[in-house]
Amino acid sequence: MVNKIKVGVIGATGMIGQNYLRLLYNHPWFDVVFLAASPNSAGKKYADAVAGRWHMENDIPAEFRDIIVEDAGKVDKAVGKCRLVFSAVEMDKKAILALEEEYAAKGFAVVSNNSAHRHTADVPVMVPEINDSHLDIIPQQRKQRGWKQGLLVVKPNCSIQSYMIPLYALIKAGYPVDKMIVTTLQAVSGAGYPGPASIDLIDNINPYIGGEEEKSEVEPLKILGKIAGGKVINDGSIKISAHCNRVPVSDGHTACCSIKFAGKKPAMDEVISIWRNFTAVPQELKLPSAPVPPIIYRDELDRPQPNKDRDAGNGMAITVGRLRPCNVFDYRFVGLHHNTVRGAAGGAILTAELLMAKGYMK
Amino acid sequence: MVNKIKVGVIGATGMIGQNYLRLLYNHPWFDVVFLAASPNSAGKKYADAVAGRWHMENDIPAEFRDIIVEDAGKVDKAVGKCRLVFSAVEMDKKAILALEEEYAAKGFAVVSNNSAHRHTADVPVMVPEINDSHLDIIPQQRKQRGWKQGLLVVKPNCSIQSYMIPLYALIKAGYPVDKMIVTTLQAVSGAGYPGPASIDLIDNINPYIGGEEEKSEVEPLKILGKIAGGKVINDGSIKISAHCNRVPVSDGHTACCSIKFAGKKPAMDEVISIWRNFTAVPQELKLPSAPVPPIIYRDELDRPQPNKDRDAGNGMAITVGRLRPCNVFDYRFVGLHHNTVRGAAGGAILTAELLMAKGYMK
Amino acid sequence: MVNKIKVGVIGATGMIGQNYLRLLYNHPWFDVVFLAASPNSAGKKYADAVAGRWHMENDIPAEFRDIIVEDAGKVDKAVGKCRLVFSAVEMDKKAILALEEEYAAKGFAVVSNNSAHRHTADVPVMVPEINDSHLDIIPQQRKQRGWKQGLLVVKPNCSIQSYMIPLYALIKAGYPVDKMIVTTLQAVSGAGYPGPASIDLIDNINPYIGGEEEKSEVEPLKILGKIAGGKVINDGSIKISAHCNRVPVSDGHTACCSIKFAGKKPAMDEVISIWRNFTAVPQELKLPSAPVPPIIYRDELDRPQPNKDRDAGNGMAITVGRLRPCNVFDYRFVGLHHNTVRGAAGGAILTAELLMAKGYMK
Amino acid sequence: MVNKIKVGVIGATGMIGQNYLRLLYNHPWFDVVFLAASPNSAGKKYADAVAGRWHMENDIPAEFRDIIVEDAGKVDKAVGKCRLVFSAVEMDKKAILALEEEYAAKGFAVVSNNSAHRHTADVPVMVPEINDSHLDIIPQQRKQRGWKQGLLVVKPNCSIQSYMIPLYALIKAGYPVDKMIVTTLQAVSGAGYPGPASIDLIDNINPYIGGEEEKSEVEPLKILGKIAGGKVINDGSIKISAHCNRVPVSDGHTACCSIKFAGKKPAMDEVISIWRNFTAVPQELKLPSAPVPPIIYRDELDRPQPNKDRDAGNGMAITVGRLRPCNVFDYRFVGLHHNTVRGAAGGAILTAELLMAKGYMK
Repeated sequence: MVNKIKVGVIGATGMIGQNYLRLLYNHPWFDVVFLAASPNSAGKKYADAVAGRWHMENDIPAEFRDIIVEDAGKVDKAVGKCRLVFSAVEMDKKAILALEEEYAAKGFAVVSNNSAHRHTADVPVMVPEINDSHLDIIPQQRKQRGWKQGLLVVKPNCSIQSYMIPLYALIKAGYPVDKMIVTTLQAVSGAGYPGPASIDLIDNINPYIGGEEEKSEVEPLKILGKIAGGKVINDGSIKISAHCNRVPVSDGHTACCSIKFAGKKPAMDEVISIWRNFTAVPQELKLPSAPVPPIIYRDELDRPQPNKDRDAGNGMAITVGRLRPCNVFDYRFVGLHHNTVRGAAGGAILTAELLMAKGYMK
Repeated sequence: MVNKIKVGVIGATGMIGQNYLRLLYNHPWFDVVFLAASPNSAGKKYADAVAGRWHMENDIPAEFRDIIVEDAGKVDKAVGKCRLVFSAVEMDKKAILALEEEYAAKGFAVVSNNSAHRHTADVPVMVPEINDSHLDIIPQQRKQRGWKQGLLVVKPNCSIQSYMIPLYALIKAGYPVDKMIVTTLQAVSGAGYPGPASIDLIDNINPYIGGEEEKSEVEPLKILGKIAGGKVINDGSIKISAHCNRVPVSDGHTACCSIKFAGKKPAMDEVISIWRNFTAVPQELKLPSAPVPPIIYRDELDRPQPNKDRDAGNGMAITVGRLRPCNVFDYRFVGLHHNTVRGAAGGAILTAELLMAKGYMK
Repeated sequence: MVNKIKVGVIGATGMIGQNYLRLLYNHPWFDVVFLAASPNSAGKKYADAVAGRWHMENDIPAEFRDIIVEDAGKVDKAVGKCRLVFSAVEMDKKAILALEEEYAAKGFAVVSNNSAHRHTADVPVMVPEINDSHLDIIPQQRKQRGWKQGLLVVKPNCSIQSYMIPLYALIKAGYPVDKMIVTTLQAVSGAGYPGPASIDLIDNINPYIGGEEEKSEVEPLKILGKIAGGKVINDGSIKISAHCNRVPVSDGHTACCSIKFAGKKPAMDEVISIWRNFTAVPQELKLPSAPVPPIIYRDELDRPQPNKDRDAGNGMAITVGRLRPCNVFDYRFVGLHHNTVRGAAGGAILTAELLMAKGYMK
Repeated sequence: MVNKIKVGVIGATGMIGQNYLRLLYNHPWFDVVFLAASPNSAGKKYADAVAGRWHMENDIPAEFRDIIVEDAGKVDKAVGKCRLVFSAVEMDKKAILALEEEYAAKGFAVVSNNSAHRHTADVPVMVPEINDSHLDIIPQQRKQRGWKQGLLVVKPNCSIQSYMIPLYALIKAGYPVDKMIVTTLQAVSGAGYPGPASIDLIDNINPYIGGEEEKSEVEPLKILGKIAGGKVINDGSIKISAHCNRVPVSDGHTACCSIKFAGKKPAMDEVISIWRNFTAVPQELKLPSAPVPPIIYRDELDRPQPNKDRDAGNGMAITVGRLRPCNVFDYRFVGLHHNTVRGAAGGAILTAELLMAKGYMK
């Protein structure tokens, strides 16, 4: 039994904030006691602040309805109330950079969904099954920035989980990957609310998502990188090229992947075996949100599919299928994950659990 | 002014047959005078034979409604009535092989949508903008098979037109392509009727289309091949790897392509210029169905899109966009075409027009 | 704690059969021990019999995978194995009539999803919140047919639950309804598998579902009827007119209703209060599948909606909203229910629970 | 041959404005010479003003690309340039009321898509096949307001055309209608751009469209009204109740209608005959946009459908089907029309043609 710690959500009224609350409801380790948003919402009960724009399938959990929303920009409001804040604020990049640092400076552990700090050298971009060791940078981060108890970590873009975890499983098993070409078919919930207009996705797909391809190519390099000199140094051994499409699917990002190994390639059945047996630190530490197994390989020819596989492992598992030889590279496969759970709030909560299990919440 | 020739459609009641009739209505060179289908339909007026299963947006053209449908298996019924037949029969492969040859043996020019003869050595797989010269095999085909006036040509699978024509334009301009990895997002009409169940594509995509990837990889090699010794010899210089997905779109196949050139690569603006200036024999011969231009390059970041671009050039043009460097190969781009027009009946009609313009209908 | 009874599913491999297994998994009162289907499936393990055509979101529950499927037509196979069978066989009407009677004659309680027996005079059409008292016909049914332990009850069509339960709540509260005009927007899962073709429902709706309007108008009269002389006598006091449409929604039927009371009408807030306070025998008996409350009235202007409300009460609740005056009748409202749960297998399971709680399983 | 008159579009950059330009391109009677929009767009070429937000399927017609957009609020900019303006401005109601009157006062014929003036007593709400005679109010309108050449007419809401024209055909044939209950299934393009979010209509319908039911019930009364004392007096003989739903369809509003006649009812075949033979002043005057016939009755059980029937009569015809008896009223039927053509810009252009043919453009 863990002693629960008190947490807050800043940017609690937006779609990602709502997903945080949905997933933090009844969480065994975290008690949500602090909600903050824009000055418009400040002073209102949470239920009133999101009236007419609560987009989750289930209703607002009763225990959050009456919490008075604070102004996220007034960091002192959170002091003494919670130990960790999940950040889902929607502001311009510069404002987010400053605000998240301010929370950390005031002693909060900050786990952020925003892209703002993903390229900050001493801020790790966390996929707990891959780079749990990047949390080792925290002492240096604190020292460099003069933070006592505060810390700042971020989660990566929602497009990459369906290929990065399977890819990493192969790398970890001794088969480094040299090149990857990936085409994603991404759900509309990845664009926040309102996201794409119906008229643009009825009987249609959109082959362009601004900024998404760059994130899908560059963020993996940091996640696979090494810590040195108080910085995360990007991996330089893998090249990724991404085509990102928006498709008329509510939740669940699909990735069609072709990969080439750097050295010798494992046999097909070995690849499947590596995926099926893959386990990592979150599973070993029995983190509450860690899916067991983290990777599900399906034998059916026509899987994974968004509406059948996105909820696997409570939305935290990666489902992989269709492993087959590639005419140009070594292998092809299809990966899928739930973009608003594993790819967003769920991934951040798993990171917070890892922080706690590793003792950074003391 | 061309003297119209009389044509027939065998397999006229199925979805591809219906598309033929839709596109042949008011055709300036061809008069549809013969319709044949399965024995069930034989003896009925066409309108009665398709009652309750006419799937085109517009009604059955009035001039076809009262044509009495014949049994497609009784080739003699067509003799004396028409010079060319479009084949869209739905039978097992062996039966199609035999039936199409029987029509050719009886003196008909046969232009087929079926995959059955695509790997027959002396039967060219035609994309008129690419391999019009493959029709040169016809004299040898006739000689080898003892056909006098008959001939047999086929069109390729509907998944490849959106990348093959842009690819060929580059090859023709002196930039041979070494490798290509392509992911297609294919419309449901490509699966015929009824095709995928609604329940399987509402809020979903399907990452698997049986046999489609093999066709998408192999057929291009024949189209790019050379005639020698009375055979079409597959091209051996390009490698293609395809991921084929079914998406909830009615018409219009999209292809996300990454290509690597065999030698030096053209600059981006040269690529665009090559595409925009590409023209080929169908355009030079002013074939009625030849789109002018055959390739449309769009500058908008978010194009091509199925519901905006599939009807370009009356459904016969290829729309290309998003040319950009590839992290792994040389370039990436997105291509799109109308799968039931350019990719099926329209492509076959263009081939028939080419046969006529080149004098094979005499 | 109830002693579990053993049950079977006949027609276990079809889509309704699969829904039964999904919902009977871990059921507190019923143990599934017998599965039967067509002769094709007989002798196979269940998992093999449905390989490639299991359409539920979650995988086949492990405990059912290895059950050997029997031939549903061989009733003796079930004898000694179970006490109750859920019928979801797909055969012609005459064959279903005979087969279900044969199971009842052999001593089984038969709870059927089929429409075949819905107009059989001594077979009640059950919506447990409305006509639990119709089970009183069972002693007469047994006597008339010479059945000892057997019995036969059916559930109604999936289109009516979203309006019948709210309607009945008003009738029960003393406000008989004279007339109702209802337009349904029905999900594709209501059509079984494969159901409508994608190409027919992408960017489209279909204003016709064969036989659905008749069922939606007539079955309510039997449900609201009285037992007399060993028969269910249809209610003659209410007139219903239905327009049934198929819409591109996976699950969840919506009904837009206009009603006119026979006598005086309750005030709007009284209607809402009646619905919110409605409870019935299944709730009083604490049947495991009985939703509490059975009717959820939502105040938001834009509810109910299929993807937000279909899972309310584990798919067994009826969600109602938009109560407002009608220019022509008295009131308008919108009702919604999950068609494959409340409207099909779930409704049948609730009926079986009612049979058990009322002592008919002894 | 008519002498073309010069026209303008105010609010030319929005979605309705774009539809105007699409439909006015190559119009035989009207030359578009003046485009105006908000001050933001003023001074730009039209193509630049709509860059990135042109939502029509085809590209901007070349002849409009270089027209310099004016500020719609500066009415003098239009003086001397055109005789008639189509109004699609998006402003608050009060501002629209004033601006449209100012254009009329300056001598322009104003044909408006806005709802602002629909309840102004001396402004007729036009459906040319129904109330062409309401244009007779124009001399009184001019007199009352002191306008010389100016005039102001509006088109009704896009939800009503599919039932109002069939209804009127019956009334005109001598069968007045007493009551109607209608449920609409409305396309997303009716909501303008961006309209509903994808996430809200994937696997979903929305049973609420703000203000739509009121418009659908009240506007018909004015259209069916009489002119007296310089006002349009609403019809008081028919009662309409409407349920309006948003469905995942791009274009095409469907209406499920139940009607009760005031007196005796025609036989079913007479109803169909009335619809099929219906013709009105726009057809008699051979207005360029008048569909011939205006009402298409289809015998197929499953028609009309949005993606098959919306383009009938170039989007200007009403397609009706499924006439059948109603259990509660006399008859039921389904009507469909293209909401952005007949229901919006196309209906307004037809009204402008009627104004011209009747001599009001002199």
